[in-house]
Amino acid sequence: MSHVFINGQWCQPEEAVVSVFDRGFLFADGVYEVVPFYTGYPLLFDDHYERLERSLAQVGIDNPYQREEWLSICQTLAESTPEANGIVYIQVTRGAEYPRNHLPEGELTPTVMATASPWVPPVETPDPVHVEPFEDIRWLRCDIKSISLLGNIMLKQEAKKRGAFEPLLHRNGRVTEGASCNYFMVKDGCLYTPPNDELILGGITREWILELAESAGIEVKETAFSLDELMQADECFLSSSTREVQPVGTIGSTTINNGSIGPITQQLAELFRNRRPHIVQE
Amino acid sequence: MSHVFINGQWCQPEEAVVSVFDRGFLFADGVYEVVPFYTGYPLLFDDHYERLERSLAQVGIDNPYQREEWLSICQTLAESTPEANGIVYIQVTRGAEYPRNHLPEGELTPTVMATASPWVPPVETPDPVHVEPFEDIRWLRCDIKSISLLGNIMLKQEAKKRGAFEPLLHRNGRVTEGASCNYFMVKDGCLYTPPNDELILGGITREWILELAESAGIEVKETAFSLDELMQADECFLSSSTREVQPVGTIGSTTINNGSIGPITQQLAELFRNRRPHIVQE
Repeated sequence: MSHVFINGQWCQPEEAVVSVFDRGFLFADGVYEVVPFYTGYPLLFDDHYERLERSLAQVGIDNPYQREEWLSICQTLAESTPEANGIVYIQVTRGAEYPRNHLPEGELTPTVMATASPWVPPVETPDPVHVEPFEDIRWLRCDIKSISLLGNIMLKQEAKKRGAFEPLLHRNGRVTEGASCNYFMVKDGCLYTPPNDELILGGITREWILELAESAGIEVKETAFSLDELMQADECFLSSSTREVQPVGTIGSTTINNGSIGPITQQLAELFRNRRPHIVQE
Repeated sequence: MSHVFINGQWCQPEEAVVSVFDRGFLFADGVYEVVPFYTGYPLLFDDHYERLERSLAQVGIDNPYQREEWLSICQTLAESTPEANGIVYIQVTRGAEYPRNHLPEGELTPTVMATASPWVPPVETPDPVHVEPFEDIRWLRCDIKSISLLGNIMLKQEAKKRGAFEPLLHRNGRVTEGASCNYFMVKDGCLYTPPNDELILGGITREWILELAESAGIEVKETAFSLDELMQADECFLSSSTREVQPVGTIGSTTINNGSIGPITQQLAELFRNRRPHIVQE
């Protein structure tokens, strides 16, 4: 079973290499996507594909494949994982050129890499986690899903040092997102999340949760809120493709909803599991 | 002649590969340095080495080699270039791990890559260039010489589209730097450059130019200035390891010093060439 796709070839992880002159390696000049598969079925593939197209367009890299080719690559990878529960990762960089120049001098062929990791989709809502607030030090185009992720990594390192599941990022007190997730709060029965602007990556999962909430008659507001407002929320959770709906129990030294899963959080997590592709239980 | 060093091995550029699971390729989780060599002699090697150590410490990657080992690698690479005029590039990433996780789960061995490009050190002051102002969209830790460079690349692309040699970056009107250079202005006989804080990469060349200016009795101020102030400067130039002192003739639609090389710019460019390692002329 081959777990890595590179430029049209399939290989084992230990054989999967790229040139050191690939602009992904030298300049973080590339973008990526992560698509969750449940027993062989992707969740919201078209949304992920459209975001990939958008990211590529934003940085000026041609999309090397059609939608159907991408889907076929992703499905093959997902099927290589146990029970076809796979987190499929795809990355496109601008390509390789020697010697190194900030701007390429020739016409480059984009480099495509894709792989899948096994995972166990949650079957119940996970226990609330602890998050720590940090000033958001990242660039001002977080709406592009780029591999230029050192800021995210450093923030994750700092959060881990402080025993947190994730950092909670804010710019001068205004909440943005996590290092690899979006944040939500519930206040007086209304669901709030920061607006989809250039300061956050508009998560596919974030968008879907908003739809699920609306379909359940929950009032939804995409609007900026402060760290102080979040600290006084009735409920808080974070979301990502692999964590679905993850309750937050403490933010720094502040406890939210007595550290328990709030009712709207629970409702949305259950809706998520009910509407995602069905998992075949053996 | 081998032009690429990877983890203790020497090879040709076309054979030089790394794992696609290298964190440099997936997360831009690494740092780099560029050291100019003149007929086999490095300029300010110790300063570059110290900055490499500092960048590695800031992101929490162990320095895999001692100063003497780095120097030996750099010298071998420089000597592989014509007349041993080489731009030596070195990069260290946190290493490779499969499968992909934002934070590594095991103990990783850093990946070291080094290479050299031939160059022709300037023998006279180059003609003034055109630069274009852009809002600085990069992260807030530009003091780390990281490979997380997509923002720089995008700004360079935009500058090139507008016919500019380099972008001139500013945050809300306050000048920071270029995408791969520092900026200076001369006003009433005083040399100004933005302070060495987290918004700029403190260039080794920048630091040396400040020393050269002081040694020549030129007043020097490391202080914040606005784009408007820069537009009214008597002279403007940019600096980097490979461009040394590069005069700026126009900023957007504003001409500086009638588009000619200013006297202090010329003096500093000549001082630079006189004090750098001697170039053997055949």
